[in-house]
Amino acid sequence: MRYEFYYWPEIQGRGEFVRLALEEAGADYIYVARRKGGMDKMMRFLESARVQTPPFAPPFLKAGKLIVGQTANILLFLGQKHGLAPKSEQGRLWTHQLQLTLADLVVEVHDTHHPVGVGLYYEDQKDEAARRTGEFLKERAPKFIGYVETVLKRNKTGWLVGRSLTYPDLSVFQVVSGLRYAFPKAMRKLAKDHPRVVELHDKVVARPRIAAYVASKRRIPHSTDGIFRHYPELEEA
Amino acid sequence: MRYEFYYWPEIQGRGEFVRLALEEAGADYIYVARRKGGMDKMMRFLESARVQTPPFAPPFLKAGKLIVGQTANILLFLGQKHGLAPKSEQGRLWTHQLQLTLADLVVEVHDTHHPVGVGLYYEDQKDEAARRTGEFLKERAPKFIGYVETVLKRNKTGWLVGRSLTYPDLSVFQVVSGLRYAFPKAMRKLAKDHPRVVELHDKVVARPRIAAYVASKRRIPHSTDGIFRHYPELEEA
Repeated sequence: MRYEFYYWPEIQGRGEFVRLALEEAGADYIYVARRKGGMDKMMRFLESARVQTPPFAPPFLKAGKLIVGQTANILLFLGQKHGLAPKSEQGRLWTHQLQLTLADLVVEVHDTHHPVGVGLYYEDQKDEAARRTGEFLKERAPKFIGYVETVLKRNKTGWLVGRSLTYPDLSVFQVVSGLRYAFPKAMRKLAKDHPRVVELHDKVVARPRIAAYVASKRRIPHSTDGIFRHYPELEEA
Repeated sequence: MRYEFYYWPEIQGRGEFVRLALEEAGADYIYVARRKGGMDKMMRFLESARVQTPPFAPPFLKAGKLIVGQTANILLFLGQKHGLAPKSEQGRLWTHQLQLTLADLVVEVHDTHHPVGVGLYYEDQKDEAARRTGEFLKERAPKFIGYVETVLKRNKTGWLVGRSLTYPDLSVFQVVSGLRYAFPKAMRKLAKDHPRVVELHDKVVARPRIAAYVASKRRIPHSTDGIFRHYPELEEA
């Protein structure tokens, strides 16, 4: 079955966490909004009054008649379908718990450049963004990245869960990639203190399908329109 | 089996979403940190180096040897065990998707009083909190509550999913209860425009077990230490 992947066409954003799972799985999918007329198709769907289970926002995935929204929920679905999560109840819940913790980190990353309001421009909240970024880099990023390091240390296999790759491993790659782009100086220091997290990033990007994807034009570059944004003034503040 | 529920002892917070499910299910559980020595027990567990699957933060639930963290993940677990979610894959995913969307709303509610930093006091970010609250009440709260209204309108049964109560219904009750406490004026207006959401709140609180729980001393009152905080100056700004 060919999946239809729905997300904004110009940014990695939350959609990228889903794409990495689709790519690692070698799944057949189309990125609807990057096709001709696809953006209109997505907006018509979001606004349609006939959808019984409407997504609140992109990303969402269509798998035949099934519509799955919310990043972590899509990964829960794909994890089971494509062997990117354990089969046991305990393993599935632990994998999902890790993903939800990474999702909390992603929210806090977004808040570094949009502390005062989702709907306002960064330029209208630069001072507040500098304050929030300061706290994020000093307190929150080390706490989250330190947590991932702890989980890797206790599991002892180089992966977050069990003995092979699961979907939150892919998300750790994306988080490290994004943080390196947004806060290069802070991440150099964080990387030194958290070698297992960096090793995991490197193992993920060495996977043949992920390596091919990341090297391709299909991977949208990081930018200051995404979740991870590089505003040098924030890191300096 | 008796569950052990772990959360901070003095606030509703995220733990309340879990408690409501435990209460509706009539589950046997203890609220560890509200017992003598329980807070120490929770902190020792969080800091123990021997836990293979450590939670990032409370709330978490112990079910025998199983440890489940992250609010929405605990509800995913309880939903299956106690008939608070459909059995079909499609139904389970849709229910979880709704819960994750409500979790996004809860994050934004928290940000109204803590826009600049999780670790700072409200008093050190009052001006920013007023700006963020303004945007939240004007744009975000109506968008989220409007979404819940739409889902209820399309499902036509008075419940979010199918023909009976599921765990996100309990969370809608908590969100309405919290928003009414935090922003009473704004919620009076929102309630008028979203009658199905208010009806759902009323249906949930009329459930015998929920009614008994809410009337009991076991329900911790709303306060300005929780997620939903009543600072009159924010609503006036």
